[in-house]
Amino acid sequence: MPSAPPDLILAGGDVLLHDGAWRVERADVVVRDGRIAAVGDAVRRDAGSGMGPRPSTTVRDCSGCLIIPGLIQAHVHLCQTLFRGLADDLRLEDWLVRRIWPLEAAHTEETVYWSAALGAAELLLGGTTAILDMETVRHTGAAFRAVERVGIRGVVGKCLMDAHPEGAPLELAESTDAALSEAEALAKRWHNGAGGRLRVCFAPRFVPSCSGPLLRAASELAERFDAQLHTHAAETIVERETVLRTTGLEEIAYLDSVGIAGPRAVLAHCVWVDAHETARLARQGTIVVHCPSSNLKLASGVAKVPELLAAGCQVAIGADGAPCNNRLDVFAEMRLAALVQKPRLGADALPAAQVLELATLGGARALGLEADIGSIAPGKRADIVVLDLREPHLHPAAGDPVSRVVYAARASDVRDVFVDGQPVVLGHELLTMPIEEIVREADRSAAELLRAASLD
Amino acid sequence: MPSAPPDLILAGGDVLLHDGAWRVERADVVVRDGRIAAVGDAVRRDAGSGMGPRPSTTVRDCSGCLIIPGLIQAHVHLCQTLFRGLADDLRLEDWLVRRIWPLEAAHTEETVYWSAALGAAELLLGGTTAILDMETVRHTGAAFRAVERVGIRGVVGKCLMDAHPEGAPLELAESTDAALSEAEALAKRWHNGAGGRLRVCFAPRFVPSCSGPLLRAASELAERFDAQLHTHAAETIVERETVLRTTGLEEIAYLDSVGIAGPRAVLAHCVWVDAHETARLARQGTIVVHCPSSNLKLASGVAKVPELLAAGCQVAIGADGAPCNNRLDVFAEMRLAALVQKPRLGADALPAAQVLELATLGGARALGLEADIGSIAPGKRADIVVLDLREPHLHPAAGDPVSRVVYAARASDVRDVFVDGQPVVLGHELLTMPIEEIVREADRSAAELLRAASLD
Repeated sequence: MPSAPPDLILAGGDVLLHDGAWRVERADVVVRDGRIAAVGDAVRRDAGSGMGPRPSTTVRDCSGCLIIPGLIQAHVHLCQTLFRGLADDLRLEDWLVRRIWPLEAAHTEETVYWSAALGAAELLLGGTTAILDMETVRHTGAAFRAVERVGIRGVVGKCLMDAHPEGAPLELAESTDAALSEAEALAKRWHNGAGGRLRVCFAPRFVPSCSGPLLRAASELAERFDAQLHTHAAETIVERETVLRTTGLEEIAYLDSVGIAGPRAVLAHCVWVDAHETARLARQGTIVVHCPSSNLKLASGVAKVPELLAAGCQVAIGADGAPCNNRLDVFAEMRLAALVQKPRLGADALPAAQVLELATLGGARALGLEADIGSIAPGKRADIVVLDLREPHLHPAAGDPVSRVVYAARASDVRDVFVDGQPVVLGHELLTMPIEEIVREADRSAAELLRAASLD
Repeated sequence: MPSAPPDLILAGGDVLLHDGAWRVERADVVVRDGRIAAVGDAVRRDAGSGMGPRPSTTVRDCSGCLIIPGLIQAHVHLCQTLFRGLADDLRLEDWLVRRIWPLEAAHTEETVYWSAALGAAELLLGGTTAILDMETVRHTGAAFRAVERVGIRGVVGKCLMDAHPEGAPLELAESTDAALSEAEALAKRWHNGAGGRLRVCFAPRFVPSCSGPLLRAASELAERFDAQLHTHAAETIVERETVLRTTGLEEIAYLDSVGIAGPRAVLAHCVWVDAHETARLARQGTIVVHCPSSNLKLASGVAKVPELLAAGCQVAIGADGAPCNNRLDVFAEMRLAALVQKPRLGADALPAAQVLELATLGGARALGLEADIGSIAPGKRADIVVLDLREPHLHPAAGDPVSRVVYAARASDVRDVFVDGQPVVLGHELLTMPIEEIVREADRSAAELLRAASLD
C-alpha cells in the first residue's frame, strides 16, 4: 500500500540526530501530517522512482544548512516582554515590587496580547519552537490568542497567587476560588487547542504568594487535565529563608507536601537547593529549569546544574522574562549555561553536547511532551529549525557541529522554522503575522503601560 | 571662509553621545576627511541654505537607527580564528599545549592571512571597528595585509616568546634577538600605515614564555615607536604561581620591574590580582583588558572588574581568540561583563552604562588612541556603527537606550560600519572583500592546518 505523499521535504542539509549522543548526517527530512515521516534519502529515492517530488510536496533546499530540532524554553513570561529595559540592574525583590508587579497590574487584554505576540515572534525568529510560559493573574486568554496566531508551541498558564506578598498591588490579588476557577475555565477553553499545539499549565507564582490549598488544588487540576505544573522555586536566598520561616519546611520538601513534585512539576531556577533537596528532586523526577542569564542579572546566583544532572535530576533551560535577561534568545542561554559552570568546576564542566540536550530533550520533558518533540526522529512532531551556516562567525567548518551550535551560533543564524510541519519563519521572515505591526503595537502598548503604572 | 563640503552625512538617526555620561540626541553626523566634523542638524541646515546636500556628499538615511561609536576590543588573536571549535572544554594549560600551540606552529603565511581576514570580517560585521591584536610568532606581515584589506582599525603585534615553556613546539621558539629584530622590522613597515589605521604593538606572550631582557627590550621599542605593549597577565592561578616561583615577584610587580607598566602597557585578563596589585595597576595607569567569555570558558575565573574600576584602574574589553569564546562578538562580551559580576556584588554592579564605556572610551585608551576614537565627537575619527532597531528583540522602544545596546542588542543588529569615515559594512554586507571568498579560503586553510598539526 503506497503511503501518502509527504507535505514537505527539507532537502540536502546536515541533520542533527540524537540516539544516545548527538551525530550529524547528510539527509533529507520528510514531513507528513505535521510529523516527521522519515530521515534519509527522500529526494533521490523519489527521483529514482521516476516520479520526482509530487506537486503537492514542498521541497525546501537546505544545502549548506544544519537542521536541528526546534529548541525549547521551559520558563518564560510572555506577558513581561513589554517590560524589557524597564527594570535593569535591580535585585529580585526590588525588581518585583518596584517594576514588575506594578506593570503586571496595569496590563489590559490588549497589552497582554501584544506583549505575548512580541515575545513569541522573537522566540520563533530565534529558533525556539516551544515554551512553557507563565502569564500574569489576568488576561491569560489574550496570551493564548497571541500564541495561537504567531504559531509557536505554547504551554501557557495563568499566574496563580492568592496570598498577598508584601509590596504586591491589590490588582494582582485573587481569592483562592476565583484563581482556580479561572484556571479551570482556561484549561477547558485552550488545553489541546490548535491541533494540540496549545496546552495549559497550572502556574502558582511561587510559594510566598500562594496558600497551601491553592498549591494542592493546582496539583489536582494538573492531574485532572493531564497538564504540567509550573512554578518558581529556590530562586534567591531570601525566598529560601522566607519559605523555611513561614512553612517550617525546606522549599522542595514543602512543595512536595502540597503535591508539587514529580515529572509533572516544573520548578524554575532552583539556585538555592542543597544536596538533600537535590536528591529529593532526582528521586521524584521533578523538573528543574535553569535560567542562567536571569539568575545572573537579578544577582540570584548560579544554579548547580552539573551537580543536579549528576544526581539524576531532569533539567531544562529558559530565558525567563525579557526584563531580567533582556533577550529571549535560547542561543544566549545555552552558551551561558555552558560557560558559567566552568570557573567553579573546570573547563570540561557542562560541555556543549549536554547543554544542547537541556534545550531539546530536557525541554520536551519539562513540557510533558517527550514523546512528541525534542529531537528529529520519525513519529515526532515536525518542530524543526534550519540554521544557515554561511556567516563568518560559524567558520571554519572543521569543528564539532554541536560546539558550533552552542558556543558560536546566534539567533540570527535561524533561517527557517517549522512547527507541526508548518512553516512559521522562512528566510528569516515571520510568516504568521506582519512583524511591523507587532513591533508598532508593542511599542504603543508599552508606552500605555508606563503611563498607567506610575513607577517610582 | 566656507568649509569644504562633507563627504558623508549620517542623517536622521538617534546618536549616542558621551559627555561625562551617555545621552541620546536625534541628530545628523557630518563626516569630512575621515573625521567627525559636526553632530547636529546638517541636513536641514543644508536645505535652509538653498543648496541642498552637495553632489559629492553621500547622505545615508539612518532614521529608525541608533548611531553609536565604533566598538573596540582590546584583546584578540586574529591568527586563532581558524581554531574556532577545535579546542573546546579544555583548561588553559591543556588548551595551549594540546591545541593552540601545535596549530599556531603549523601556520603558514597563507593560513594566517585567511585566519585574520575571517576574524576581521566577523568583527566588522558585528560592530567592532578597532582591535588590539596579538598574532603568533611568525607571519605577522600576513595578518597586517589582511587587516589592511578588510578595513578594520588594527593595532597588531607579533607574539614575542624567547623562553620555551613546557609543551611548546620548537617552531614557536625564537632567540631574543631574532624576535626583537622582526618586531622592529614590522614596526618600520606597518606602524601608522593605511593613513594611520594600522599600528603595531609589541606583544610578549606572557611572562612564562619571555626572558627579562626580551620584556625590557619590548618596553623600549614601544617607547621608541610610540606604540602600545600588549601581553597576558594573571590569567590563571597556575600562571600567578609560576611567575612568583620563577621571578620571586608577584606578577604585576615583576612586569613593572621590566618596564611593562603605565598607560602604554595593556594586560589581558588580570583575573588573579590582589588588592595590592590592583592599587599598583591604578597608580601606574596600566590598562587591564577584561575577557569575560574567555575567562569562563577556560575556567580561569572572573576578573574583579568593579573593584578594579573602583580603585581607579583603566579597563577595556575583549573577546580573546575564537577558540576560547567561540565568538568575536563585542555584544556578547558587554552583556556577559555586566551579568557575571552581579551574583557576587549585587544586581546594580557594573551597570550597562559603565560596560559600554569599557567597550568604547576604555578601548580607545587601551589602543593609545583616546584622542582619536571611542566616542562620537567633532574632531574624532569617524569610526561609527549604525544599529538597526527594527527587530522585535529590541522592543519596546520605551527603555533606556544604553540598556538596549548592552543587554538586548546583537551583532546582527549592526547595519552599517564606517572606519575613518569609509563605509566597510553597508546593509549588513561587507564591502571590502567578498565574504564568500573569505569563508571558503578560511575553511580550506583550517583543513590544511588540521592535517599539518597532528593533534592528539
